[in-house]
Amino acid sequence: MKPPQPVPNIAALPLSRPFVAPEELGRLAGHATLLRLGANESAFGPPPRALEAMRAELPRTAWYGDPESADLRDALALRHGCSNENIVVGAGIDDLLGLAIRAYVAPGEVAVATLGTYPTVVYHIHGYGGRFASVPYARGGAVQLDALLERARTTHARLIYLANPDNPSGGFLPVADLRKLLDALPGETLLVLDEAYADFVAPNELLPDFIDPRVIRMRTFSKAYGLAGARIGYALASRETAATFNKIRLQYNVNRTAQIGALAALDEGVFIAGVIDEVARGRADYASLAKRLGLATLPSFANFVCIDLGTRERAEAMVATLLKNAVFVRKASAAPIDRCIRVTVGCVEERSLFATRFTEALATLDANPALP
Amino acid sequence: MKPPQPVPNIAALPLSRPFVAPEELGRLAGHATLLRLGANESAFGPPPRALEAMRAELPRTAWYGDPESADLRDALALRHGCSNENIVVGAGIDDLLGLAIRAYVAPGEVAVATLGTYPTVVYHIHGYGGRFASVPYARGGAVQLDALLERARTTHARLIYLANPDNPSGGFLPVADLRKLLDALPGETLLVLDEAYADFVAPNELLPDFIDPRVIRMRTFSKAYGLAGARIGYALASRETAATFNKIRLQYNVNRTAQIGALAALDEGVFIAGVIDEVARGRADYASLAKRLGLATLPSFANFVCIDLGTRERAEAMVATLLKNAVFVRKASAAPIDRCIRVTVGCVEERSLFATRFTEALATLDANPALP
Repeated sequence: MKPPQPVPNIAALPLSRPFVAPEELGRLAGHATLLRLGANESAFGPPPRALEAMRAELPRTAWYGDPESADLRDALALRHGCSNENIVVGAGIDDLLGLAIRAYVAPGEVAVATLGTYPTVVYHIHGYGGRFASVPYARGGAVQLDALLERARTTHARLIYLANPDNPSGGFLPVADLRKLLDALPGETLLVLDEAYADFVAPNELLPDFIDPRVIRMRTFSKAYGLAGARIGYALASRETAATFNKIRLQYNVNRTAQIGALAALDEGVFIAGVIDEVARGRADYASLAKRLGLATLPSFANFVCIDLGTRERAEAMVATLLKNAVFVRKASAAPIDRCIRVTVGCVEERSLFATRFTEALATLDANPALP
Repeated sequence: MKPPQPVPNIAALPLSRPFVAPEELGRLAGHATLLRLGANESAFGPPPRALEAMRAELPRTAWYGDPESADLRDALALRHGCSNENIVVGAGIDDLLGLAIRAYVAPGEVAVATLGTYPTVVYHIHGYGGRFASVPYARGGAVQLDALLERARTTHARLIYLANPDNPSGGFLPVADLRKLLDALPGETLLVLDEAYADFVAPNELLPDFIDPRVIRMRTFSKAYGLAGARIGYALASRETAATFNKIRLQYNVNRTAQIGALAALDEGVFIAGVIDEVARGRADYASLAKRLGLATLPSFANFVCIDLGTRERAEAMVATLLKNAVFVRKASAAPIDRCIRVTVGCVEERSLFATRFTEALATLDANPALP
């Protein structure tokens, strides 16, 4: 007899994964370690006070963390000028995205995003039985806001996902564009604004803090704050939306030392400012490197840069060639920007090593007549 | 205009929480710290090697953990004599329970469990739109296996949840009973066997390791292994079931230091054996204490003991009185064992402090003529 089967929607899902991790790529390529420039992790480590606070907290790991993340939510509320009831802490934006899609997109309903943007979004849409409707990037890598809106309108979408700065393109929509989007947002549509990389943009270029029941903003400690491995992020939302998340989220959803580390990291403004400066220098380094080699880059406002290899085939060959030489980068997955590899800003030494390996790999590619 | 609303099933959920955490209880009661004997955390801390491994790993917190938890799964596969494809690592059993219910109980379908057992189960059943059908504990605290089976049959349940040892009763079903359950399990019903507390039972009294496509066994590092705050546990399941979990789980689901700590903890057999011995002594201490005070306890095979206060009202008053005196315990939530408070085994000093506070609280209760 057949054992109990999963519910039809989940049984029908392919065994897909949004990412293949560097650990696994390394195992497959036979490298014990890789130059990790593929996951947009911070090359500058956790802030020193966060590290110290986590270290001091470790002996209490036998205790559960506070399921309310009360201290952290209080600190975030102060920072964003809102109530702690507007904040939900989760195990990274991935976790919070899952909650948003689960809560607001019923099976069969539509969520809209740019084709090839952060893959976990589509993973969750399919995972919760929703339908994904998309709009491609413009040729130059820009998110096409009007087309996204139109797509949302015609599909009666329940949710638009927008990453700003965008991943993987690195592009950034200015406040005026976002205001136009909000003005035109259909009444039935929620906007999920993924601001994972917003720390790399000057605060006065971001939407000011606001609470709008049609918008969920998501932030993370994984990027500028150097705590990707801790798995902690938060949503800024209306009290009603936050309460909805609280009805369904895992109660003990965040690691105890992650809570402590995130709280301490909020006091590390000077360190974070240094990271942001160094990331800007790194983006400039990558742009110069590309230019020297006759390649274009997409404008980036995040901690990574897309280098244009001209064709998808060349970009794929570049990722494979770099991996063979123990360098982990990723590439954009969808046309028209799947001709680009995406390189995380490393520290000075990592950038220098990348420049060497990339230059060598490009020569290898150029020597291969089979590549268009 | 009304903002976008949650999907009907989630909109209809009450804002319930499976637990109110000690941090919040402390805040409400005006105590900065509590004697934490309410969440079945280990009083003996993380194993030293786990602590050391986590400490050494913290500087790499800017890196994501391995989404495949490959090293940990390999070690667990070796321990359980199965393939690493039979193991799914998650952010504690709470996370894995959510996956099981999401994947195997469609909205409107039924899952069966004992009324008042681990509350996160019911939280997830309702959260995913399932229906909960239950059977009460026997008067003495035993799980009623035949009645659970009968309930599953008549409701065409997709899933039976069974905690063994049980929480909050502490009771334990011997292997022969579980074999009878497996023999009688309806073909459409999956058995989720929550073995969070199995480390406290002698291995030869547990079901041997086995892979059965009708069964998902769940284990955690939160109890004997002293890593509750790390949020890490695993499911042992058929390859098919594990693959189903892998289709929908969060990819970066576990904190990086938690993975490292759990792996190191597996090498701490001697330390864990010491914890288990001390927990057994602690259970005996609580039983003696109760006996001295003229109270019964439920037989326990876990790291906590239920002390019988006679009535729900007295048990509630006891929890409140202890909290007033900075002692955090919980009580069973459902009749007929809601007459019991549940006390986690602390270290010697904690047990001694508990004995004092409990004796005082009992005198307070006895002096209150309003309590039945």
